[in-house]
Parts: sequence; structure tokens; C-alpha cells
Amino acid sequence: MAQAPVLTPRADDFPRWYQDLIAKAELADNGPVRGTMVVRPYGYGLWERMQQEMDARIKAAGAANAYFPLLIPQSYLAKEAEHVEGFAPELAVVTHAGGKELEEPVVVRPTSETIVNEYFSKWVQSYRDLPLLINQWANVVRWELRPRLFLRTTEFLWQEGHTAHATFEDARDYAARIHREVYADFLREVLAMDVVPGRKTGRERFAGAINTLTLEGMTGDGKALQLATSHELGQNFARAFDTRYLSKDGRQEYVWQTSWGSTTRMVGALVMMHGDDHGLRVPPRLAPVQAVVVAVKGDDAVLAEARRTGERLRAAGVRVHVDDRTDLPFGRRAVDWELKGVPVRIEIGPRDLADGTAVLVRRIRGSRRPVPSEALPALLPRMLEDDQALLLEESRRHRTDRTAEVTGIEEAVAAAGTGWARIPWDRLGPEGEARLAEQGVTVRCLVAADGSVPASEDQPGNVAVVARAY
Amino acid sequence: MAQAPVLTPRADDFPRWYQDLIAKAELADNGPVRGTMVVRPYGYGLWERMQQEMDARIKAAGAANAYFPLLIPQSYLAKEAEHVEGFAPELAVVTHAGGKELEEPVVVRPTSETIVNEYFSKWVQSYRDLPLLINQWANVVRWELRPRLFLRTTEFLWQEGHTAHATFEDARDYAARIHREVYADFLREVLAMDVVPGRKTGRERFAGAINTLTLEGMTGDGKALQLATSHELGQNFARAFDTRYLSKDGRQEYVWQTSWGSTTRMVGALVMMHGDDHGLRVPPRLAPVQAVVVAVKGDDAVLAEARRTGERLRAAGVRVHVDDRTDLPFGRRAVDWELKGVPVRIEIGPRDLADGTAVLVRRIRGSRRPVPSEALPALLPRMLEDDQALLLEESRRHRTDRTAEVTGIEEAVAAAGTGWARIPWDRLGPEGEARLAEQGVTVRCLVAADGSVPASEDQPGNVAVVARAY
Repeated sequence: MAQAPVLTPRADDFPRWYQDLIAKAELADNGPVRGTMVVRPYGYGLWERMQQEMDARIKAAGAANAYFPLLIPQSYLAKEAEHVEGFAPELAVVTHAGGKELEEPVVVRPTSETIVNEYFSKWVQSYRDLPLLINQWANVVRWELRPRLFLRTTEFLWQEGHTAHATFEDARDYAARIHREVYADFLREVLAMDVVPGRKTGRERFAGAINTLTLEGMTGDGKALQLATSHELGQNFARAFDTRYLSKDGRQEYVWQTSWGSTTRMVGALVMMHGDDHGLRVPPRLAPVQAVVVAVKGDDAVLAEARRTGERLRAAGVRVHVDDRTDLPFGRRAVDWELKGVPVRIEIGPRDLADGTAVLVRRIRGSRRPVPSEALPALLPRMLEDDQALLLEESRRHRTDRTAEVTGIEEAVAAAGTGWARIPWDRLGPEGEARLAEQGVTVRCLVAADGSVPASEDQPGNVAVVARAY
Repeated sequence: MAQAPVLTPRADDFPRWYQDLIAKAELADNGPVRGTMVVRPYGYGLWERMQQEMDARIKAAGAANAYFPLLIPQSYLAKEAEHVEGFAPELAVVTHAGGKELEEPVVVRPTSETIVNEYFSKWVQSYRDLPLLINQWANVVRWELRPRLFLRTTEFLWQEGHTAHATFEDARDYAARIHREVYADFLREVLAMDVVPGRKTGRERFAGAINTLTLEGMTGDGKALQLATSHELGQNFARAFDTRYLSKDGRQEYVWQTSWGSTTRMVGALVMMHGDDHGLRVPPRLAPVQAVVVAVKGDDAVLAEARRTGERLRAAGVRVHVDDRTDLPFGRRAVDWELKGVPVRIEIGPRDLADGTAVLVRRIRGSRRPVPSEALPALLPRMLEDDQALLLEESRRHRTDRTAEVTGIEEAVAAAGTGWARIPWDRLGPEGEARLAEQGVTVRCLVAADGSVPASEDQPGNVAVVARAY
């Protein structure tokens, strides 16, 4: 492990370290059109595992997947006033197609509330059709002026949920359920991120929503990352698109709606929250490869033992890859697996073979020791769970160590230089929030006195979590 | 089952029946932009199952998933002459973004060979980097003048594979492997479609390829549907994008490439190939819901028994849905499940409960009989496999019954009125092919005398399969 540094150290230049890691761990490349991104196989493998885990949770919450078109008539966007104001500056517009100029330009979806509502209006007739719970996995385009791989890209991949309910309460509860059972659960239990759940202020809400719930994570350099949001849309889109249902007592009522999304930004968050100066550290529950078995030399017996170990670990339920690229130097391969953050590396060379041992390297803990080969299948599943827990605990400690309790704006700005600040919302308020924003510090979310998500912005005891954000 | 017809009968108007079925089985709606499509949850569920089965086969063939950008600089398309000529008329062009006119317009990808090659040129350095085997699941846009839901839509979902190899032979063999182990295997074993594997003629090849392999299926009205294609690209894109590698003997060589794709058209094919006058019939191995347990009445004991039956079938490995919407008339629900083509329906009412039986309705076979409830978990898995085999056998019989052996062009055109014709390629040739095309009949593929895929267009004994196509 003690190699010459392959990455810019985090302490020297965090954004540069981030870029270096993404390139050297082969997660992504910049695309040819400004702000777009090529997600390489290893990066995409992380996203696929995220999709699997999220998709299972979304389905457990009762939503079904569907697919709405990429191209939306420009006139749809204009139907909800706040929404169009929020998204107009970021739109990509198709003006020509099939060799002709289009009569009405179409936009590449920046999000799908408008087109979804057009169809909800057709599908929803009576209270029996509610709740209508839909999710889609798709790409969206928002023209980015200051792009950064994974965190802010012109095109990104995401899931967007869209639901319609008979009552305000049902919609509110469903947005909260997704926030808790899908997003918070996934981020904590799978990504091992100690995220803070909260409520956005009016200033930070989604364009067209009446309430936005968020989960915020702390990066290695003490900034904030918004990880997933759930919106109560009220009846804003229902009124704009005339989405109504016949109630049990025979009246036409507008539906109440939610939308909620999470994106490939989570791959960037994984880097920024769990990476170290040697590379990425992937939480074992997420890892597409939990253990890599490295044949140190291209010796037949070594290769056979590496493959046999791979088989035995696979049988024990571990996601394994056998690295038999013995035409490449061992040191280079070891550095590569460190960079990619595979949780466990098992090195097998001729001497280990003779001893009946293998060298076990744990990426998250940073340990390295020989173990009897026969013990590996029993050891590994428990070790992976221990390392998962350690990563979450590190994340919790990092956040609490770098969060200051403050009462004034000056203090908050100072604290945001190295971490987050918590300040009573009744001391800050929308005016204080605007003053902070002038200095590049934003209210990431409001949390209640007991740590729960506040039922309203002005609930007594609310605390604002403020930080600089990516 | 004997209801008034809910669909236009196939014999009256096949295209109308197709449209009716897609609407009433809730597979898809037309999108607002001409030729686009909203895939509804039941239709998307079919696609998700296709993705799962295909993705496992693609990974088993050694390819890894990645993601390339949606937006491609217009100049990239122009680099390969045949390619741009083939796709130019179908492109959608973004000219404005972020509130400004773009300096260089960008196209919405119609396929990704060009942008993939731009990156392969960077990633491939030496023979050690080959073969490079990549797949992506994505949406593409091709402006369609005569759209039809699922079969030809302006935007569609697909997987596109892109690979680079050191030699012509390796690329040729890999295209053939995908054709056989991914596409043919999936279409036959999962979709129960008796497809014909063959080679496209020069006229029908993919724009930029040196060879295209195809799988063609016969629709209920005797036409042809192209289901999946694999292309040998030769060095065409490698030369256009300068994709070279350092060979073992130290020389710079162009790579040899393949690309291969299959799309949401397969959902339309499922309808056109397996549907009947009552609706869709979903092959059991594909079906997202293999058995639906219908509670006939909203009686507590009936509902409890329906749920218990659902649990027991789930434990037996069957994908089950319990229909407890007893506020809707039973007849309407039965018709709905017929339309959706769920392979097995189990109806439980108060009388069945008293008898310890349930009514078992098999959609593919069209049978209906009472069975002892306790026997269901043991019966169903075998029944589903039998019905899967029956569907494939029906598909084979339909194709062979409707395929004529002919020797002249007049005869071929006549046969194409109700089915396919097979005509020796040395009797037809490119000139005969052009004459057929004038009458709307195309060469779907060439097959060798022994039924295998010909190694070349002019291999002696080649037979042309000709038909009208969707």
C-alpha cells in the first residue's frame, strides 16, 4: 500500500484530488459536449448496484416503473409558472428534426412533471385509480454552466418518482415515506453515509413544489452535498394540467401530488464522502466486487489456487473477481484495486501457496495480514459487514466533529470554512439566509429540535444546517 | 372467457387489432411529440423482464455496461460517410441550449458508434486492452415518418453493444456469438419465438457495416419483423476515428469492431407474434406476473384464501399477483387479465372455497377447469413450462405453414400476400431484390442451404427469405 502518491493529496487540493480519482479509478471521462459525461464500466457498475438496491425499495413502497418521452413540447413547460421560471435557463431545445424546422420546438426533458401530468390527467378518472404511484429510470438534460463529473453534469441519469393522491395528507405521507424508506434507508444502510434528513427552506425548494424534503451528506472537505429530494407538489401541477378525479361523494377534485428523485450524483458523493488519498473506498453492501483475488504470479498452481479461492468465496455469497492479468506488474494491479476501492483484496503468490495462506488486505480498515486460505469463506462475510459498519461510523464521526453550533451569521460563515454550522432558524430567517447566500453559504435544510424533519418551516425550535455546497 | 369481443378481430383488421390491444392491455400511449410513446407500467414490466434476461446473457458473453452521452457533436456523425448518409434524414438537432444558440449544433443520438469510437480511441492503447466489450442500455431518437407504437417510434429504448478486437476473425466470431448466445437464445427460450437467423443482403445492411446478422420473426398476419441485429463493422469506424492499438509485434493496427442492438420493438413483437383475439399471451418465462389469483368476491374468507394461495405459489417460485379489487366487477377483471395475457388465472369464490378447489384458467392453452387448491403449488411450475413449449411450437407451426418455397419473383410476391417465401438467392440476386422492393417486398435475410447463417452473400446454395415487413 505504501506507494508514491498516485493522486493529488486531499489536503492539498480537494477538487483536484476528486478529478484525479475519477480519472485513475476509471469511473468517468468528460464528454465532447460541454458538461456531459461518459460513465466507464467501473463507474457504471457502481450505478447499477445503486439502481438494484433503490429499485427494490421503490417497488416495496408500491410504485411501478414506466417510461415517458424524452422530448416535451415547449408549451407544456410553460403551464406551471414557477416550474418554467426555474428550468427555462437550463433547457436544451430541439428546433430541427427529420431534415426540417419543427413547427413547435421541443425541449429535452429537464424533469418530467409536465409530461407525466398530461398522462395522469387521462389515466386518473375516479378515486379508485388513486393513489397512482409511478417511477421512471431515465436521463435528463440541464445545461450546466459550472459542470463537475457526477455532481453537476449537463446530462445525468436518475430515477424520478411521480405520484397522485386523493388527499393532501396522503401525498404528504407518501413523500415522507419515500424520503425515509427509500432514500434515507438506502443512503445509510447501503452507501454507509451518515446523511442528515431535513426540510428545504422556501428559497431552496424545487420549482413548483410546496415542500421539499432532502438528505444532506458531508464531503471529505466539510462541504455539503444534496443527495436525494422528495417534493410535495400540492395541487400546482394538477391545476395546470387539469388532473382531477371523481371523489367517493361524486365531486370532481384536483389530485395532490409528489415527485422525488436521486441521480448519478450519488456516485460522486461516494467518492467525496468515502474516498481517501489512496482512492475510493466502496461500502461492501454496494460493491459490485466485494473481494478481488489477485494471482501474484502467472504460475499454474497460483492461478489454479486463485480461481479455486474465487469459487469458494462465490459459494459463500461474496461478489468476487479473480485478477489473473499476470502479464501486468503486480504492484500496478494492487494500486489499481486500491484506487477502485474494492473492500477486500486477497493476494496469492507461490510462497503463500506453500504455506496454505493468503494475504488479506482490507481497504476500509487499511489492514494487511496473512490468513489460512481455508478460513476465508467463513471469515469474509462477517468482515465485510464489520467494514460496512466502520465506514458509517467514520462518516458519522466526521460530520459531528466538523459541525459547529452557532448563534450568529458571522460565526456560521466562519464555521462553513471547514464544515457545517447549526443555527436556530428563528435567529436566521429568510433575511439571514439571503445574507449568508451572498457569501456562498446556503441553508442545506431545517431540522426539528429532536432531529426529526419539521412539519413546517416555522415550527418552533427548528435549526438551520448551513454550509458551502457542491 | 366467452365475452363480447373487446378487440377488433385480427382477421378483420390486424393493424387495428394491434392498436386496440396496446391501448386496452395498457401497454402504451402515444406521446405528445409525433412518433413518441409513453410506456405504461404493464408494458414497461415486460421490458424490464426482457432487460433482466438479456442483461444476464450479455454479461455472460463478457461485455460490461457503460453509458455514453445522449448529445453528440454533429461533426462526429460526418466522419463515417455511409453512416451519416444513412442517419442524416432521421436526426433530431439541438440548436439552442442554456438560453443561447450553440456554436456547433448537437444531435440527439440515433445510435452511438461515433461517440463510442471517440472514446475507444483513448482507451485502447495496446493488444492487452483488447477485446474491449461494452454494452449500454439507453434511449435513442430517429425521426419517424410512419410511426407505430413499439415497432417504429421516434424515441425508443434499447441496448447497444460496441466492441473492438485485434483481428477480423475475433470480431466476426464475437458478432456471431452475440447473435446466437444472446439474441437467438433469448428470443427462442424466453420469448418463445421461432425466429429465423440469417444474414442481411448489401441493400439491407446497417449503415457503416460490412455484414449484418439478423433474426426475423413472423407476425400473426404473416409479415416479417426484424428482432435483433449484430453488425461486423470491419475497420470503417476505426479508420474514421483513428482507433488503433500496438500489436504484439510492435505495430500500430486499426481495431476490428462489432455493434449489436435490440429494442422495445420486442414488446410489439410479443403482441404481433403471440397475441390472439382475446389479447396478449405472455410466455411464462418472460411474464412479470405468471399467475394471478383472483378473489371473485369481497368475502373475508375468500380474500384470505386468495392471499394464502398467493403466498404458497410464491414459495413454489411462481411470480404471483393477488387481485383483491373486489369493488370492481369480476367479469371486467377477468377480461383485463385475458387482455394482459397473464399465463395462468386462478379464480377463488365462496363455492370453490367450500369445495377446497379453485378454478384454473390457462391463457395459452385456453383451458378452464377446477383443481384441488392444495395441488396448485406442485402443478403450476410444470404447467408454465408446458405452456412455454406450446407457444414456441405454435410459433414454429405458424411460420412453416405460412412459408412457401418458390423459384420466381411473381410467385414470391404472391406468397408475400399471406406469408413468407423462400427463393434461391442465385435466382433472385440484387436485381431481383430491387424489383421485389418496388412492390413492397424485401429480402429479410439470406440463409444457407442447411439453415445456418451463410458465411458470405454469394455462398452457393443461399436462400433468400422474402416478405412484407413491419
